[in-house]
Order: sequence, then C-alpha cells, then structure tokens
Amino acid sequence: MNKQFGQARAVDQGFLDRLADQFGDQASFSDAVRERFGKDESYHPSVPPDAVVTVRDTADVSRLLALCNEHRVPVIPYGAGTSLEGSVSALHGGVAVNLQEMKDIIEVHHEDLDVVVQPGVTRRQLNDYLRDSGLFFPVDPGADASIGGMVSTRASGTNAVRYGTVRENVLSLEAVLPDGRVIRTGSRARKSAAGYDLSHLFCGSEGTLGVITEITLRLYGVPEAMSSAVCNFQSLEGAVQTVIQTIQFGVPVARIELLDPVQVDAINRYSKTNYPVEPTLFLEFHGSEASVKEQAETVGAIAEEHGGGEFAWTTNTEERNRLWRARHDAAYACKALRPNGQIWATDVCVPISRLAECIMETRADLDANGLLAPIVGHVGDGNFHLVLLVDHTDESEVERARAVHERMVHRAIDMGGTCTGEHGIGYGKLDFLEREKGGAVDVMWQLKQAIDPNNIMNPGKVIRPR
Amino acid sequence: MNKQFGQARAVDQGFLDRLADQFGDQASFSDAVRERFGKDESYHPSVPPDAVVTVRDTADVSRLLALCNEHRVPVIPYGAGTSLEGSVSALHGGVAVNLQEMKDIIEVHHEDLDVVVQPGVTRRQLNDYLRDSGLFFPVDPGADASIGGMVSTRASGTNAVRYGTVRENVLSLEAVLPDGRVIRTGSRARKSAAGYDLSHLFCGSEGTLGVITEITLRLYGVPEAMSSAVCNFQSLEGAVQTVIQTIQFGVPVARIELLDPVQVDAINRYSKTNYPVEPTLFLEFHGSEASVKEQAETVGAIAEEHGGGEFAWTTNTEERNRLWRARHDAAYACKALRPNGQIWATDVCVPISRLAECIMETRADLDANGLLAPIVGHVGDGNFHLVLLVDHTDESEVERARAVHERMVHRAIDMGGTCTGEHGIGYGKLDFLEREKGGAVDVMWQLKQAIDPNNIMNPGKVIRPR
Repeated sequence: MNKQFGQARAVDQGFLDRLADQFGDQASFSDAVRERFGKDESYHPSVPPDAVVTVRDTADVSRLLALCNEHRVPVIPYGAGTSLEGSVSALHGGVAVNLQEMKDIIEVHHEDLDVVVQPGVTRRQLNDYLRDSGLFFPVDPGADASIGGMVSTRASGTNAVRYGTVRENVLSLEAVLPDGRVIRTGSRARKSAAGYDLSHLFCGSEGTLGVITEITLRLYGVPEAMSSAVCNFQSLEGAVQTVIQTIQFGVPVARIELLDPVQVDAINRYSKTNYPVEPTLFLEFHGSEASVKEQAETVGAIAEEHGGGEFAWTTNTEERNRLWRARHDAAYACKALRPNGQIWATDVCVPISRLAECIMETRADLDANGLLAPIVGHVGDGNFHLVLLVDHTDESEVERARAVHERMVHRAIDMGGTCTGEHGIGYGKLDFLEREKGGAVDVMWQLKQAIDPNNIMNPGKVIRPR
Repeated sequence: MNKQFGQARAVDQGFLDRLADQFGDQASFSDAVRERFGKDESYHPSVPPDAVVTVRDTADVSRLLALCNEHRVPVIPYGAGTSLEGSVSALHGGVAVNLQEMKDIIEVHHEDLDVVVQPGVTRRQLNDYLRDSGLFFPVDPGADASIGGMVSTRASGTNAVRYGTVRENVLSLEAVLPDGRVIRTGSRARKSAAGYDLSHLFCGSEGTLGVITEITLRLYGVPEAMSSAVCNFQSLEGAVQTVIQTIQFGVPVARIELLDPVQVDAINRYSKTNYPVEPTLFLEFHGSEASVKEQAETVGAIAEEHGGGEFAWTTNTEERNRLWRARHDAAYACKALRPNGQIWATDVCVPISRLAECIMETRADLDANGLLAPIVGHVGDGNFHLVLLVDHTDESEVERARAVHERMVHRAIDMGGTCTGEHGIGYGKLDFLEREKGGAVDVMWQLKQAIDPNNIMNPGKVIRPR
C-alpha cells in the first residue's frame, strides 16, 4: 500500500483470497509482477498494485470489476505501459488489469475502411497485420502503445495534422463499467447523431470511468505515393509561418514536424546526420504521384519566402525512412545528450499563431535556468514537446526544472492553449487541469461520480476528488 | 400545457410573474409567439411553451436557467427552428430560450483558422461574413441552421466526407448548466488530452444538458479550385462501388451525393434539368487546379469500371452552381411531387458496404406499400435521407409510412448502422435510440441526472426518463 498519496484503502486478505479463488493463474501477487505493472515509461516512480489480473475477454473484465466494486478496491487498467504521465501507478493500491492478452484483431472491413480490435493490440501489431491489405492506421505516437491506451489518453502524434488524433478515428467502443455492466458506445456508421457521444467521453478518460474492451477504428488506404522533405530556417518564426501558410493554402500535408536547434544537434550526434543546427521542419506528403510532387513544390515555395534554406524533397523510400527513423529516435538522441540524466517528457498545445512565441519564451527560460531540453513539435497542430534532461540527484536542478515546466504550461494556457496536447493528465498534471478548465473540472467530477460512485476506477488520476 | 405527452408540469402564475419581472420586454407570453417557438421544420406539430425569453448574453441565460431550475420549469433552447425531429417542441411546457439575438461573430483568427461565435449566428451569416477573408466554414446541412443548433444536433451535410461533421469542427464551447453555472469545455488548441471531452458530450445533446452560449469552430482556406461532376449509373451498386473505391483510393472528394431515380425525376421536374432517370452521383472536388483535374479524372475512370455513364466534369462556376442549386432544392422538388403531401424527412447511416442493400430493400418496401419517397444521400458517409410524402388525412397511408420507416431504421441498425446520421433523436426517435444503444442509454440518463438533476433541460427529448 502506498500511503504517501493519501486516501490509501486497505485491500484486505479476504478480497485477495476471493481474487485468487476466482481468477486462479490469471491473478498474480508477486513483488516482481506488481512492481512491473506499477510503472510506465514516464519519470514517475513505480507504485505497485496489490495484485495483477491478466484478463482474456470482456467477461473476465466484467466479473473482475464487479468484484472490485463490491469490495471498493481500486482498478487500474494496464495496456502497454507507455504512458508519460504515470497513468498506471497504483496510487491507492488495488488491482492492475493486464490487458496484454486481449490482443485479437477481430474484424477488418475493407470496404468500410474500419477495424475492430481488442484493447491490447498495439499500433505496430495492427499495421503489421494490415500490411498486405492496402490499408493502414495512421495514428502514431512514436511508442508502440496499445490501442486501448491510445484511446484512453486521446493519443496522437506525427500524422495528426492530416489524419486526426485517436479521437477523430474512434468509431465505437465496448466498455465495462465499474459495476460490471458492458456497454457499446457507437456503431460502425461513419457518423451518428444518436444520443450522447459516449465514445468521446471514454476517449481521453484515462481509465477513470471503466475499462475499454473493444475498439472500432477508422482505417485509410495506403497512399499511392509519399514524399518527404527537410528544410532548415534562419528563424523559428520563419519555420512557423511556413507551417501556417501551408495549412491556410490547404496543402494536405501528412506530417510537419518542427525541431529546434538543440534537438537537431542531438539528432546529428545520435543518428550521424549533418543537418544544419537551426530550426528545422521535417515534412511528409501523401497522395498521387502528381499530388505529392505538387505539394512539395508548393511548400518549398512558401518556405523560400520565409527564409528557408535548401528544400530537399524525395520520394526515395530509403531516404524517407532514414529521415523518419531519425525523427523517431529523437527521444533516444535526447537521452544520449546526457546519459546520466533522467528524461522528463511533457507536452503542451497552443493556437499556432502563438507557437513561435511560446517556444521562444520557453527556450529563454530554459537557458536562464541552465537546463538542457530539446524541443520537438507536431507543429501543424500547435503541439510541442519539451524533453527535460534532469539530474534527479540535484535538488536545485529538479526544482528549476519543475518551475520552468510550470511556467511553460501556464504560458500555454494563457495563450489559449492546453496543458497537454497528447500525453494526458495522469497524476502529473492535476493542478494544471484545474487551472485550464476551472469549473468544468467540477462537471467532470460529477460525471465521474455518476458512473463510478465508489471511485474505484484509476483513483487519483485526471481529476482531484471534490 | 400539453397533457398528451404526460408528466406535464404546471407552470404557476408566481413563476410567470417572476419571469415577467426579471426579463421585462425580453419575455413574451402571447399565443402567436409561443406557437411560433413551439414549431420547427419537421412534421411534428407545434407544442408551444408557456413563455419565450429572448436572451442577449450569457448572463441572461445563466439567470434564466437558475430561475427555471429553482421553480423546476422546463427550458427549451431555440436557435433557427430548423430541427427535423421536433427538438423545440415544449412537450412539458416551460420556457423557450430564443437565442436569435445572440448572433455576434466574436473573433476570427486567420492564422489559427478558427472563429468564435454566439449560438444564434447562422451558417450563411458566418460564411457571408468570411467571404473576403479567404476562409470558410464547410459544414452545410442545407437549411440555414444556427451554429448553436448545429452543434446541439451534431449536424453535418454534403461536405462531411471531406471536412467532417460539426463534431470534428468544434474546438470549444461555453455552456450554461441548469443551475446557472457557466463552463468552458475546451480551448483554442487544435487538440488536447486534458480531461474529459465535455465539448463532445454537449455536441449532440440536443439541449438536454444546458444551453450553449459560445462556440469556437475550425475554419478552412477556400480552395484554389473547385470542380464538379455528375454521373449516372445503370445500377445502384455501381454508384456505391464507385464511392467505395474513390474513398479507398484516398481521393479527397469534397462532396459525393447519391440520388435515386425517384429523386432525379423530382429534380428534373422542379429544376428543369434533364438528368437521366437513373441512380446518379453529384460530386465536387476541392484543391489546386491540377489536383481537382486529377481527382475528377481518377473518379471518372473508377465510375467507368462500374457502369457509369458519361462523366461530365467542370470547373465553370455557373455550371457548378446550377448543379448544387438543384441538389439544395431537392427538398422542394420532393414537395412539388405531391403538393398536398406532408414531408416526413428522416435519415439513417450505415457502413458503406451495406448502403446499396439498405437503400434497395427500403425502396422495395416503399414500392410494396405504395408510398412516394425520393432517396438522397451523403453517400461518402453511408448516410441517406428518406423523404416520405404522406397524405396525413389518410390514416392507412400514415400507418404504412410509419411501418416502412420503422423497418428502415431497424434495418440500418441491424446492418451495424445508426438510427440517425445527422438529424438527431428529438422525440421522434426515442425508441430507436433504445434499440440501437441498449444499456448505453441508461448511462446517458445517469449523465443527464448528474448535470440536470431536476430534468429541466428540454425534457422528453433524446432519452426516456428511467
């Protein structure tokens, strides 16, 4: 039990005995397993649950939740453990629901461009499965997250500017409520005006309302052609203005990523590239052969107007892969800048007109505080990541990092933005959510209480109890 | 008071006196005004409220709702009155909130491609305002609906296949809750993973959770070029297969509308056109000059493979306008087929792989029952409309129409679709929502109770009380 988070609830032996009795081999109580399921990829320490139950189907989830609800025991859903905000930490003890064995791809509907999957299916597993079908699932947060986890945190990534985030790509969910009821939130219809939008209430609720047990997602045809480009800029404003005009012109850019000079330098060192150490855009275009050529030429002309350097674009698969591998390895490149540092990844999202200003003020604040932190962003959405590299044994540095982070989030909110574009609240951003949403958080709590009156679902996450 | 809907609540004179006292000229009690605000564009009869209050700002709405909540008096939001499911009928009496004077366009952010509007702004007003800005708001349900009403019913229309429905285009809302609290659900950031998605809970809730008082919407750059096309097909399957392949190929078609032969005939008579009386697609392409040419050629080739006739495409503005005027006048064309008939417009949405089958079975059922009803659809989304022309003095015909309608909706649900793609539930489709969503409707009711414990917000709509 972890007392430091308050409100710890004693999980009594009687409950654990019933769990062992009802779930047999599917329940684990060992220290090693509990430790593993209390930890994600974030800087948050492991907070182990009292037990881990590996579920195999919706019926398993339903009887587990009904049992936990009867005993008022917390339930923490666990997908692939790639959360960056401590979503899986068992702050009040309880049972982690391991969804990794619910990984069936149930049905692909080629004509309807949709797929039905279990929550433990990972993004890469899905795209590997689809490889020969001419279809793909575009949402790409970098990590090989589970689809259930992606839906739960409203994940997005590099492709969101064209294909939307998970939110725009969820058609329907099956979810188990805390009392064991099973509901279906939508249908396979592309759109619906039928009743409250429960799919989008569950999407982004981070396991605090129930456990998602099935997901229907939109798919897309693999584009006929893809081209990629890199362009460096004399100034951050030039890069951001290029993005703004590209989107205003209606160029259907598939990816448009901004790297600040610190990030470019990190990538050059790690991936043995030699990009000029300047604000840089990585771009990708999807469409017909003629269309990707035209898109690249249009953006090249816009970039030139805004002080862009050579606009190198290519349809060569090997060169494209090298580029995006370097982008995907950005986190490792950051880490390598300071091998003993701990990575503290965070994100905000602002209206794009404020993006350059938000990034520059944040960079100045980092420099003034002697902190090392590359910045990389899904700039078409106004979303950027700060990757703080912090020596956690240095209290002063930790405190400076915390303060710079807080100022960055407040700055983003004050600019009309949000405290997180894609990582979620977890328990790292509870105060920021209050600052951003004000009285709306009271409404979120009312909804939470309506669905989960005993507050068993992932307690301590997203919303502070009222 | 309208007893026929049950649960009528007496609005006592004391309440009406307080209303008159607090709202002065803004409150109206006349029969003519009440009659008008109890009626929308649907076949549902007028069910007048006890009073109509014209609100001018959020503070007006807040004090009105607090007063009504104190007295347990129903509140019915009224935008432009273009609902097709009786959303504005005062089934239990109460106060209609006239939002037509809240029609300010508050802020346009050109770089961010967004706009902040009051709920009474209409779709055409917004696009007229934007005319010289190079921007536009694409969601087009046909009627000149208010933006507040469109958000409340999760409206869409012809452009949804490319630009999404209102759901995909709402960034944030300000809403007044039944107790008078004012909340903001989102921000101007393009995406956010911060807390529960209240924007999308309110979007489509048809005024049953509160009154929307401000809306932040996405805008788009007016495309450089547009081309339109018409193509008739020997079979409905050929037309639908053309649509499926067009979308699988990733052609970013802006509009793709299917008209069945009955609808084509109606248009020919009304708009003096001479389209072949066969299943027909109306299409529109947006993009660069080269891109719209390429899109039209690609779809032309696909149509040819599926038995399409001459694929006539044009970038000529006058020809394009004539085409889309004919499409927009489809409802009048239907009406003109039977001047004494009453229009009973309804919609369903199915996975596109089932669309041809769903339409053909519905057509066969109509024919077998001697009913006149053109079919027109936003076929890229799998959404289609049945426009029943019914003689309401003929009880047998009304009953046959009701039964055919019910079978169509059940058919759509059984095919994995939804009982309404874009019109909403109102009080015409309560039973269908239950059939479609099952236990999920219980959850909707729990949410409704959490936010509106006295059930004052548009009672009798969307969800049957539990």
